[in-house]
Amino acid sequence: MGDVPGIVVTGASGRMGQTLIRLAEGSDRLKLVACVERAGHAWIGRDVGEAMGGAPIGVTVTDDPLEAFAKAQAVVDFTSPAATVEFAALAAQARAVHVIGTTGLEAEHLARIEAASRHAVIVRAGNMSLGVNLLVRLTEKVAAALDADWDIEVVEAHHRMKVDAPSGTALMLGAAAAAGRGVALEDARVSGRDGITGARERGTIGFSAIRGGDIVGEHDVIFAGMGERVILRHVATDRGIFARGALRAAVWGQGQKPGQYDMMDVLGI
Amino acid sequence: MGDVPGIVVTGASGRMGQTLIRLAEGSDRLKLVACVERAGHAWIGRDVGEAMGGAPIGVTVTDDPLEAFAKAQAVVDFTSPAATVEFAALAAQARAVHVIGTTGLEAEHLARIEAASRHAVIVRAGNMSLGVNLLVRLTEKVAAALDADWDIEVVEAHHRMKVDAPSGTALMLGAAAAAGRGVALEDARVSGRDGITGARERGTIGFSAIRGGDIVGEHDVIFAGMGERVILRHVATDRGIFARGALRAAVWGQGQKPGQYDMMDVLGI
Amino acid sequence: MGDVPGIVVTGASGRMGQTLIRLAEGSDRLKLVACVERAGHAWIGRDVGEAMGGAPIGVTVTDDPLEAFAKAQAVVDFTSPAATVEFAALAAQARAVHVIGTTGLEAEHLARIEAASRHAVIVRAGNMSLGVNLLVRLTEKVAAALDADWDIEVVEAHHRMKVDAPSGTALMLGAAAAAGRGVALEDARVSGRDGITGARERGTIGFSAIRGGDIVGEHDVIFAGMGERVILRHVATDRGIFARGALRAAVWGQGQKPGQYDMMDVLGI
Amino acid sequence: MGDVPGIVVTGASGRMGQTLIRLAEGSDRLKLVACVERAGHAWIGRDVGEAMGGAPIGVTVTDDPLEAFAKAQAVVDFTSPAATVEFAALAAQARAVHVIGTTGLEAEHLARIEAASRHAVIVRAGNMSLGVNLLVRLTEKVAAALDADWDIEVVEAHHRMKVDAPSGTALMLGAAAAAGRGVALEDARVSGRDGITGARERGTIGFSAIRGGDIVGEHDVIFAGMGERVILRHVATDRGIFARGALRAAVWGQGQKPGQYDMMDVLGI
Repeated sequence: MGDVPGIVVTGASGRMGQTLIRLAEGSDRLKLVACVERAGHAWIGRDVGEAMGGAPIGVTVTDDPLEAFAKAQAVVDFTSPAATVEFAALAAQARAVHVIGTTGLEAEHLARIEAASRHAVIVRAGNMSLGVNLLVRLTEKVAAALDADWDIEVVEAHHRMKVDAPSGTALMLGAAAAAGRGVALEDARVSGRDGITGARERGTIGFSAIRGGDIVGEHDVIFAGMGERVILRHVATDRGIFARGALRAAVWGQGQKPGQYDMMDVLGI
Repeated sequence: MGDVPGIVVTGASGRMGQTLIRLAEGSDRLKLVACVERAGHAWIGRDVGEAMGGAPIGVTVTDDPLEAFAKAQAVVDFTSPAATVEFAALAAQARAVHVIGTTGLEAEHLARIEAASRHAVIVRAGNMSLGVNLLVRLTEKVAAALDADWDIEVVEAHHRMKVDAPSGTALMLGAAAAAGRGVALEDARVSGRDGITGARERGTIGFSAIRGGDIVGEHDVIFAGMGERVILRHVATDRGIFARGALRAAVWGQGQKPGQYDMMDVLGI
Repeated sequence: MGDVPGIVVTGASGRMGQTLIRLAEGSDRLKLVACVERAGHAWIGRDVGEAMGGAPIGVTVTDDPLEAFAKAQAVVDFTSPAATVEFAALAAQARAVHVIGTTGLEAEHLARIEAASRHAVIVRAGNMSLGVNLLVRLTEKVAAALDADWDIEVVEAHHRMKVDAPSGTALMLGAAAAAGRGVALEDARVSGRDGITGARERGTIGFSAIRGGDIVGEHDVIFAGMGERVILRHVATDRGIFARGALRAAVWGQGQKPGQYDMMDVLGI
Repeated sequence: MGDVPGIVVTGASGRMGQTLIRLAEGSDRLKLVACVERAGHAWIGRDVGEAMGGAPIGVTVTDDPLEAFAKAQAVVDFTSPAATVEFAALAAQARAVHVIGTTGLEAEHLARIEAASRHAVIVRAGNMSLGVNLLVRLTEKVAAALDADWDIEVVEAHHRMKVDAPSGTALMLGAAAAAGRGVALEDARVSGRDGITGARERGTIGFSAIRGGDIVGEHDVIFAGMGERVILRHVATDRGIFARGALRAAVWGQGQKPGQYDMMDVLGI
């Protein structure tokens, strides 16, 4: 374990935080060195293994991110936009790679992340799964290869608790399809078809959102031509795929030049 | 071919009319005896086989429905609401079974069909495919067996020229699901999910409509529970399935008591 | 929580035992009142919540099944054949419903379970998932409704560690299809199609087995006719579905007459 | 229609010939200028539209290929190996693009085609569907991007009359997957899984063949990892896709340098 990068997990008590901690403990490509939670959280000062209901693992939860980041080579962060922009500045100060899986980032947050990336390596993605990122790249390639005689539809299914539609990943796939065709998604997007819609307009990209049970996440990109269809499909059955991708990004980021990167860079596709 | 029922096809020159004529010619369970088109149509007086671009088959297209119906045991009718209500009265007068696949029927048309069915056998269905009708019945049974811990979603895909969403068949499936649960579809229906929807409301029935290429028609009824899903799926690849079902109904109707029937009756499920 | 049935979980420390305990704790339709392990097990005398690595829940693990069963209305049991036949006698004595998910039962065990069921309610199934049992019943009904013009294929997908093909559930579905058609599966079964097979023989039932990753279990029963297909599909994403079905059976069994039941009875289909 | 390329269809009376003629008549990107059949065929000297049972279209069927090719910019050819090698020489002489969809070509035929391609543009593919060719290329790319932690399975479905398994297209996809991984398909292939198979062997490529009804052709390439799957899927619903791809190749070939090309070149992927 000598030379593997040391990792900090932020938001340690959250579902993604706990998944990251378990996977990090099981990995021989990196080492968990610190866990961060917000000041006042019940886990502060406790061994994180015990706090998670298991055996102690020798890592105490802290509410001091800078101290934590200072002893690590990477920070893996699925928290909130407000926390993430603070962490970006601190990680840059600590010269640690900052892997950002936080969602809901707006222009103001992105600007502060961009500023931090002038001095540090940041890997940021709306979806950190290997398969999803592959699907995004394939979608762009297929949309470029096939003309608008092929209708593009993006269909996604998620669990019943999801509050928005289409999913962020579906929009990312739609944007890739639009880019492949050389158009802007906002000009092509048709969502929530219902009622008298008229015939499908050539060149549009349609979105459908299925909600039910505890579906982790399924995405289909359908290219429907005359007499044939090409369908690119991703099925996620375990949220661990996002954590796995994030940890892979943390390792990949070691030794890269400062700047912002995404999972395509990590995967080399 | 002695005792098989004689069939009239109305709207002979339409796509469905021609499909019916070809299938009837190839069947040994019934016999094509007449074809009807509206007065003034170019096919009137011509042999229908020749009019369709092939060899003559000995059946001349007529614009006199009563004369045609009088020599038949069944009328198979995929025309317009206005024509269909006329045909219903004439078929009753001729004591011929009237198989109605016409869509867009409104209350006034349904009342006149109901009146005709007091003296004649009428088989009417929004969708005459064997598989679709089976799916409707299964949907009702499964919705009755599973409680509202299972979320119901209906997903349909059709060709790019379809002008409305969800499809009539999707709504029929949704109505069957609602009936199985003992609720009204209009109280449970959620269509065209888009934007900030909030978490899925328990007991609702969701609809999604995919449009592209020349997809004939695909319907999924998804029952999504925790950790598992049951999916009932129908895939149509050939519009001939509606014609096949209608011809089967024409044979089945022989010897039934006057009244209105649907494909469930024909299939005995 | 007043009137909900009290439940005993046997084999409390096993994977299925722990899943049952977690689900029972989260349910408001029943209440966990006791947990049983074999004499000498390290968990005996401990609070089961703590033994599982979490907070105490006020239920102590015991090695005295009769005392445990006496305070409960149902016993949920995924243990071994030898233990299960003992539990069947004790549950009958305690007038508790006995839900049996144990596999590997042979004729001698089944005879003793049958004897116990003369005085008590027993629900027993090889696969306790609601969805799989529903699929089996639907498969039989559809096979009975459609004639041999519809080709039947069963396709299953499982994780890479599975050592046999087709899966037991696939064979159960195939047997249901054969029963619906009034034939024996062994006369109709075609598995592992490869090479020059000749055209598909009418009336056969084909099986395909897909293996990869950590797929929990997916089964499709395909009825393929001319121009259309009906597909009955089950997707399992969580092994907890077997525990959930067992708990539902425990609730359902309250107030039933003595006898042996299966999940079809529980589902009411 | 001024500058669009003129097309000759060989084997005009065959199923593929007639499909090509109908599609060419409906296209504004090319123009049907001649149709060829073998000497002595009943269609020789007749208008091809009439010969096909419809209205005349002003193109007479000829048994003189050179005369036909001389007035065209492309020859579209789904005939027999013997005819195709003759046509290749004549098309080269006429400086017409030769699109070859003929199957069953052996080494001797391929050598003569290769010779012709020194002076002319030849586009040749075992399967001319745009979607299938796209799928082959994507399969190779994905197999190269993902390591052997991802299990590859190829699943295909075809109509009940198909006599061999897996399909030629499935094997083409499997070969592409093997190439992407840098292995030979014959070393990795597992077909017809049945019985006690043992756990899936790492690095293998599995094949499953579904047969039923009149399914035109469906192919899935599944990459199954831990917690996620990527699936590349092609659905053919109309054999016209092969004709459409061939006509696209005929247009694409205009202005290319002499040589042999395949559908990947046409698609530009």
